[in-house]
Parts: sequence; structure tokens; C-alpha cells
Amino acid sequence: MKVLVTAVLAVAMIGSVRADLFEAAELETARELRALALESNLGYEITADLTTRIGNRLAGSENDARAVEWAVAKLESLGFDRVWTEPATFPTWAREHERVSITSPVEQDLVSLAIGFSPGTPEGGVEAEVVMLDDLAALRAAPAEQVAGKIVFIRKRMERARDGSGYGPTVAARGTGSMEAAEKNALALIIRSVGTSTNRFAHTGAMRFDAGSRRIPAAAISNPDADQLERLIGMGEKVRLKVDIGAQVNEPYTSQNVIAEITGSEHPEEIVALGAHLDSWDVGTGAIDDGAGVGIVTAAAKLIMENAERPERSIRVILFAAEELGLWGGRAWAEAHKDNIENYQLAAESDFGAGPVYEISARVSDEAWPVIEAIHAELEMLGIAMGGRTQARGGPDFMPMSIHGLAAADLKQDGTKYFDYHHTENDTLDKIDPAEMAQNVAAYAVLAWLAAQSPVDFGSGPGLVEGGD
Amino acid sequence: MKVLVTAVLAVAMIGSVRADLFEAAELETARELRALALESNLGYEITADLTTRIGNRLAGSENDARAVEWAVAKLESLGFDRVWTEPATFPTWAREHERVSITSPVEQDLVSLAIGFSPGTPEGGVEAEVVMLDDLAALRAAPAEQVAGKIVFIRKRMERARDGSGYGPTVAARGTGSMEAAEKNALALIIRSVGTSTNRFAHTGAMRFDAGSRRIPAAAISNPDADQLERLIGMGEKVRLKVDIGAQVNEPYTSQNVIAEITGSEHPEEIVALGAHLDSWDVGTGAIDDGAGVGIVTAAAKLIMENAERPERSIRVILFAAEELGLWGGRAWAEAHKDNIENYQLAAESDFGAGPVYEISARVSDEAWPVIEAIHAELEMLGIAMGGRTQARGGPDFMPMSIHGLAAADLKQDGTKYFDYHHTENDTLDKIDPAEMAQNVAAYAVLAWLAAQSPVDFGSGPGLVEGGD
Repeated sequence: MKVLVTAVLAVAMIGSVRADLFEAAELETARELRALALESNLGYEITADLTTRIGNRLAGSENDARAVEWAVAKLESLGFDRVWTEPATFPTWAREHERVSITSPVEQDLVSLAIGFSPGTPEGGVEAEVVMLDDLAALRAAPAEQVAGKIVFIRKRMERARDGSGYGPTVAARGTGSMEAAEKNALALIIRSVGTSTNRFAHTGAMRFDAGSRRIPAAAISNPDADQLERLIGMGEKVRLKVDIGAQVNEPYTSQNVIAEITGSEHPEEIVALGAHLDSWDVGTGAIDDGAGVGIVTAAAKLIMENAERPERSIRVILFAAEELGLWGGRAWAEAHKDNIENYQLAAESDFGAGPVYEISARVSDEAWPVIEAIHAELEMLGIAMGGRTQARGGPDFMPMSIHGLAAADLKQDGTKYFDYHHTENDTLDKIDPAEMAQNVAAYAVLAWLAAQSPVDFGSGPGLVEGGD
Repeated sequence: MKVLVTAVLAVAMIGSVRADLFEAAELETARELRALALESNLGYEITADLTTRIGNRLAGSENDARAVEWAVAKLESLGFDRVWTEPATFPTWAREHERVSITSPVEQDLVSLAIGFSPGTPEGGVEAEVVMLDDLAALRAAPAEQVAGKIVFIRKRMERARDGSGYGPTVAARGTGSMEAAEKNALALIIRSVGTSTNRFAHTGAMRFDAGSRRIPAAAISNPDADQLERLIGMGEKVRLKVDIGAQVNEPYTSQNVIAEITGSEHPEEIVALGAHLDSWDVGTGAIDDGAGVGIVTAAAKLIMENAERPERSIRVILFAAEELGLWGGRAWAEAHKDNIENYQLAAESDFGAGPVYEISARVSDEAWPVIEAIHAELEMLGIAMGGRTQARGGPDFMPMSIHGLAAADLKQDGTKYFDYHHTENDTLDKIDPAEMAQNVAAYAVLAWLAAQSPVDFGSGPGLVEGGD
């Protein structure tokens, strides 16, 4: 019995410690926000409005400018205290066309998408025998004479996982395959799509490139097409491919991060930053990537505006520019604000679709860790577990600022289905479950509200660079 | 107790009646075939070979000719007694390009496919305000001034059903919408895809046309794109569309029905006919429509060839030409053989994907009905129920002969998912479950074997025209 009593007392004490960090009325408000968010469809409606009225919005395109206009108007209409833009300049790329076909033994068109920043092929395309390789490591290991003058096909498959952990190892070929195959004088690179769907959609995304390094035209083919190509080669056929890509690497373009603020009542200079990115790839309507994030964080802030007292700290919604082309909005924001990093109390970005949040983790000061635990206590009934102290980055657009020691929380979403749609033509509004999305809004509303009410410093600054576990 | 005893006796008597229709050894062979088929991957391998080596095979295209060559070689290599071709001539159509876009309020490309036999638009396309209508009835009811000079959008949704019964009411707009909208001087017709998937694939298929009637360019947009268009109109926007279609209605082409026979030992002139069609639409690889059918009926016959005595009646596999463009192979076959219809004992075509067979129904003579019941008894352990005596047509390619009184069995397949893939780019091999496909092969093998061994006449001929219930 003694053990049990001790345990009960310990739990009671922990409860008491947590509760002491916030006033009862603040916790009451957090619970009201949570309940209201679960009942509200606002996040979904914002995402529907953006993705229906604008459609896709590739950074640097006409629709990018329209999306910025839309965002300013939408945030103003929602009643934020201040709405403004901050510039971000970046290199642009535009798809003109792509066509990947088997030319021998029998002509067959494959569903493909050029990889972002792929150069175009010479007029009429390139045509050559295909060399199938398992992965990027196999390309690195291949003797130059095996691939020179050929079209390289990397067949690595992405594994499905809740946390999206299959993406990193597979996307490497998209990132540097073009440069690496160029070094061995291949004519073009084809990769199996970095995605988990068996539907016939190809997956685009940006390639990396070093200044001065040579790249070759590169495209992804859909997973059923990759299966087809593998099968045909497996039947002993000598397969030839043709790759015809038209693309423009354009002049640098300046777009805008769109920022809206609920100005804090007590510490207006202290900011809780909620992020998402406004741009998308040029296929699909960018609903899960990242129309969902735009809806989630905007609705969370709006719910606080409408249903809580004015928060003590400021809450900012930051809709970043040009994430897809290389985190350019996030880089510009970090450059502009890194000298005041101490003001950015806590940052969290929603950029992983609209699947339910299942875990919170954070990188904050020792002093602030109990605050994260207290916030987690209010998230638990949403099915959100404690992931602990980690090198949380708050999301891709906060990464450039993270390097300088940004305190951040990660609300990890279930991404089991995310890579069925991500960066494909099939990323459309119907892929979002409004109820799951509302759970996200609830989580961000609770997080932002309590972080804004906490008197504790979350610890942003150079000292946090090596913090966390 | 008395009731129970009577029931048991009745069951025993029925069992005995059925069994008497076949010799014990014949039933034993049927069961062996069933077991072997369930263990065999042959059907799937045949489908994989066709769809991988040839890809899609639009009737009248180069790949159509390649598919005929493939079929002759494949059937010969499998050891049939005779393999031959019979000509079928038909009008052809070829897709050049299609592009459907919203031009106002913001430009957005929609995923689309021209409907087969659509005329092309004038160079550069047509552009006009869109008029959204619920269905074909609404188009018929609309005053001409409502649609004249506009682009008509029919938003009717297809319902998902095991038996595919949602298709008929929805496909009507694809069939005659172009002619009917032309009568009211619309510029073009856009329909929501006739399919059940929320993936972003458009659904093609042929339109009907009467000689001399005017048609306008027509295309289907994917279901998420139809949602998008509906939503945009619902937001109160005045939406304009642009439709740009390039298509060629070509000269008549002569392709071939490919026929293979296991020649009967006792009654070689009496034929059990298993059908499928060799052509496909020009998108996807025609795996479920109808590569699956080709694999299923060919494998069923091959299993009989290898594992049974030579059947008493002949068994023929008929791979029909140009089904998709209007049952042209089936029409030619009926025309060539209707005078000998009495020889065609029983016909069954597989043309509904590779989902499991759940029911058998048939249209046969009174005398032959107990034979169908006896065959069903051997299909029951495959999960196949008795659907009863119906106006079974044996499948689309046997319909032209059905008019003349062809005895036929329908092995009805679960089509719950069929219209997720049918006539789309996404009809690829990975959509077939090899185990479900093997169940189909087992059903066709049992049906063909027992029908070939039965001494009873199934009743094909003019007298059967009004038969069945």
C-alpha cells in the first residue's frame, strides 16, 4: 500500500507543479479553445479558400503573387492587429514539359515529372539505353563506363512510416543524383518517385546543386511506371528510354513572407511564432503541402483572438515564401530577425499535411521544460503523447533560425498517408479529413495560448544551440 | 425431427440429381482443376506479360497490331490445338492532346481526358463561361439559350457498388451528352469522370454518335477537379473554361479476333466459348480492362489442357478486338458465326477486372438448367452464390451474338474497386490481386470443363432469345 500511496502523492505533486505554472483561468481558457477548435471547421475553410481560389502557387509564379495578395487580405479580414509582408529573394524554376518514354522494345509513355531545377534536355530529348541501379550508393560505386552515355534509373523504393522516416533515405537520389550522374557523364537521370502510393502519380521536388557543378536532366517516374520498367528489364529486354524535358531557370524573384500579429498585452515584443508556407509545387493544389498548415495555424490564432483575453505575449502567424525551392522565406526571416532571436519565445510550424498530431517534443531552456510538460498535459486528451526534449526545429522554415538557437516545439503529425500525395498532382483538398485537421488546430491553439501566457523564458539564443538531448 | 429428416433427404436427393449429370471422374477433375487454379499464378503471369511488353493497345494503333502478334504467339506457345485470327473492321479514333483549364477568375489546369470519338476543337481551343448542370436530364431540360455559346459541365457523381450498377446511370452523359449539347449549340461538354476514385485521374471511354448528328468536343475531368470547379462556382465566382482538344477520327482499320481451341474428343463442333478483349484504352496499361480477362480465360483453358483429359466438346478462347470502340470484335464474330449459333454451347467473358467472382447466373435451356446448378455446386466453395436464371449475356463481346439467342453464363465479379481504375491512366498491373485473380481462373476452369463434358444441349438458337426470367 505504501508504494501506491507514494505514487499517488507523487502524481498529485506533479499535477500541482504543472498547474502552478499557469493560472486557473488560463488553463480554463486553454480547455475552452481546445473544445472550440474541435468543433470548428475554420482551418479547413481557410485551406479550401486558398486552394480553390488560387490553386497551385509555385514560388515565383503569377499564382505566388496572387497567394500573397490572398493571404494579406485573408489575415486582415480575420481581424489581426497587424498584417505585413517581408521580402524573400530566391532563384526560380519553371516546368515547361517533360516526357519520359520507353522507346524499345515497344514505345510506352511513362508518367513523369521533372525534378525542380532540372535543366532541360536538348530540343527533341535524349535517347539511350537505361542502366538500372539500386540506389544513390550504387550510382556512386558504379564505374563511369557503366553509365557514361546512358540514362540512369534509380529504383529505390520509399518505405511507409508514421513519422515519414522513409523519406530521407529515398529523397537523397532526388537531391544529388543529377550532379552525381553528371560526373560520370550519364545523359539523364530517372528515379522512382519518392512516395508511398501505388497510384500513377510522379513526385516532384527540388534537387540540390552546388554552384559551378554540372547537372543533367532529371525526372521522377510514378511508382507503377517504375514497376513496369523494372519488370521489363527483368524479362531480359534491352530497354531504351527517351527523356525530353523543357524547363527554365529564371531570374531571381522577390516574393513575401506574410505575417500577422495578435499584439501581446504585457510583453508585445515577446513572440510566439506559428509557421506554415504559402507556396506549393506547381502540380496539385498544394492542399496538404502546405495549404493545410496555412489553415491550421491561421485558425488557431483566430480562435485565440475570438475566444480568449488578449494574450500577454504577441502571437504571430508567419506564412513563409518559397519553402519548396529551398526554404528561402525561412532563410530571409532568419537573416532579418536573428539579431533579436531572444524575442522569439517559441516557434512551431505546421508543414506535414493534416494528419492528427500524435506527439509533442521541444527544444527549450531547462527552466522552460516544465512549461512544455504543463502544455502537454492540456494536449493529452487530443491523443498527443510526450516525445520529450529533442533537437526540435519547429518545422522546415524555422530551421535557418534554429541554427542560431531558436526555442521550438514540434507537434508531430501522423504522416502514414502524407507521402501518398505530397508533391504530386494528387495533392488536392479532398485528401484532408476536416476532423483530423480540427485536432491540429486545437493543438496549435493550446500551445500558442499557453506559451503566450507563460512568464517563463523559453530560452531562444545562442546558448540553446547545443541544448536538448 | 420429421422436418429435419425430410430436409436431409431432400438435400441428398438434390445432390444425387446433380451428381448424375456428370460422371464421378469428371467431377473429380473439376475439383482438381479448382485446386490447381487456386495454387497457380499463370493467369497473372499472362496479364503481366501482355501489359508489360505491350502496354496500352488502343484498337487501331500500332500497339493493337503488336498485341495481336503477342496473342497469337502466346496462345501457340501454350499448346492449343489451333490458333487463328478472324478480322474485325471498325472506325478508329486517336487522341492527340487535351487541355481543360479554368481561365477566370484565376488560371488553373484541370486533369482531363478527351472522350473517345470527340472531335477536336478549333486550333487554340474554345473559351467560354461554364454552365453547371446536375445530369443529362438537366441538359435535356435546359432551354437552348442557357447553354448556347457556353461550355456545359455535368457534375453527376457515380455511386460505388459491388455490381458496378452506378456506372450505367452516370455514363449516359459520356455516351450522348456531346450530341445533345450540340443540339443546343453549346461549345463544348465537360463531365465529371465516370468513376469512383478520389484520385486525380480522368476517365475516358467512347461516346455514341448517330450518323449525321453533330457532336461537340467533349472531355471528362477528374473527380477532384470536378469538386474544385463545383466549389469555385459555389463561392459565387463567374467561372470561364478553356477546352483545347486535338483528336483524329481515322480511316477504318481491320484488326483481328484471336482465337485458340482445345479441340473436343467427342463433339469437336460443339464449342464452349471463353471470351476477353485484347484491346484497351490508350491510357494506363489496360491491366484490369481487360488484360485481366485475357489472363483469366487463357489460364483456365491452359489448366484444362494440362491437367484434364481432352474435353468432349471443344473449348475456345476468343480474345476480341476493338471492344472499347464499340464491341467491333464481338459484332464481327456474331456476324461470322450466327448461322452456326447452335454449335456455341455456352459462352462466358471475363471483362470486369480481377475482383473475386461472387455469383453465377445463366441463360440456358430448361433442359440445361440443372447442369448449371450442378456446375454451381462445384463453384460454391470458391464463395460463388447462385444468381439464378437471368438474361445473362456472357459479357459485352458476346452481346451481339446474344441477340440471336446465345446460351451464356455470367460469372459476376466484385467490382467495388473496379471503377477506381477503369479507363484511367491508373489501370496498371499493381491494381490486380493475384490471389483474387486465381479464384477467377478456378471458376472459369470449372465452368468450361464441366460445360464441355455435359451431354446436355445448353440451347443456343433463336428459341432462347426470349428465354430466362
